[in-house]
Amino acid sequence: MSEHAPITGLSRQLGFIREINALKNILRKSLMPDSERFENSAEHSWHVAMMADVLSEHANETIDVGRVIRMLLIHDIVEVDAGDTDLYDAQGRVEQHDREARAARRLFGLLPEQQASEFRALWDEFEERKTADARFAKALDRFQPLFLNFQGGGVAWIRRGIRRDQVSDASGVIADGSMSLWHEAQRLITEAHERGWLV
Amino acid sequence: MSEHAPITGLSRQLGFIREINALKNILRKSLMPDSERFENSAEHSWHVAMMADVLSEHANETIDVGRVIRMLLIHDIVEVDAGDTDLYDAQGRVEQHDREARAARRLFGLLPEQQASEFRALWDEFEERKTADARFAKALDRFQPLFLNFQGGGVAWIRRGIRRDQVSDASGVIADGSMSLWHEAQRLITEAHERGWLV
Repeated sequence: MSEHAPITGLSRQLGFIREINALKNILRKSLMPDSERFENSAEHSWHVAMMADVLSEHANETIDVGRVIRMLLIHDIVEVDAGDTDLYDAQGRVEQHDREARAARRLFGLLPEQQASEFRALWDEFEERKTADARFAKALDRFQPLFLNFQGGGVAWIRRGIRRDQVSDASGVIADGSMSLWHEAQRLITEAHERGWLV
Repeated sequence: MSEHAPITGLSRQLGFIREINALKNILRKSLMPDSERFENSAEHSWHVAMMADVLSEHANETIDVGRVIRMLLIHDIVEVDAGDTDLYDAQGRVEQHDREARAARRLFGLLPEQQASEFRALWDEFEERKTADARFAKALDRFQPLFLNFQGGGVAWIRRGIRRDQVSDASGVIADGSMSLWHEAQRLITEAHERGWLV
């Protein structure tokens, strides 16, 4: 864009759209089922947003599926600055919230003021898990890598020597959002363990 | 999943979720701004869905942003079977609709019946562009690669010798959904041409 374009709402919004493109280069710990590459956080966000639409009837509580989808689309944007934090990295997770809160201030702050507040509030809601929408969104965010790693024959777990109890503990929040998905998660974990994919 | 699990609504839904994962391996013609790889259709879908949320105020008509987002999340799922069709491949585009309609039957058909019909109707609406929601969704789908290719210094255009009139013609549908984005598109095209990125 021209350097002399006036700073309008639209140009701030496009600046944000440009900046978040970098989420496509943030790699997660999940492998694609063919094991050839890691999943990135942008395509993960698409996948969980689709899951919200398809699986909404399995939420424990009444939810607003449109809000859940919006929440999941933005839930990882902070990783543009803060990077992906490994679910099984206890030390990394201690500092995760501060790092991500700084990222949220900068990234959502690129938007016009009112919109910045709105997006920030939606991200805070997801993080705090105090609403039905946030609990269901978090359940999907936790179920998706388990599902993906299972589809990939557990290679992502095997390579890192992940234990059954680590996956079980991490899947606890799934029950808060969807008992159906929690039961499915237990079934996948048991089967993965029987097949020797989890220690 | 166990081979002996009963075929419930949930297992059909998870079968669909598993199948659409392949959208992450469908490569588009847009390059990432660092030019190191092509964008895939899953991360593109996330990016345009985010744009719908951020840019909704710029729609020409009153829209339901939640529906626009859902439409954009599913708009490229047919590419799992049909592949990405080049915007500038006239021959490929002739057969595109039949190929994609077959893909829509198979892929949405993996879902429970009522949900399959609902998703298929949403995809048809996007394709037909007869509603305000579909016109805005299509405008974003057309604006996004232009914006991304501009950010990347036009490398994706230069390598293929794309002409200014090809990009201009393709951007026509942007005006049907958002005059603000159409003006922005014209500005980007003019500047790209001046810089020698478009023939």
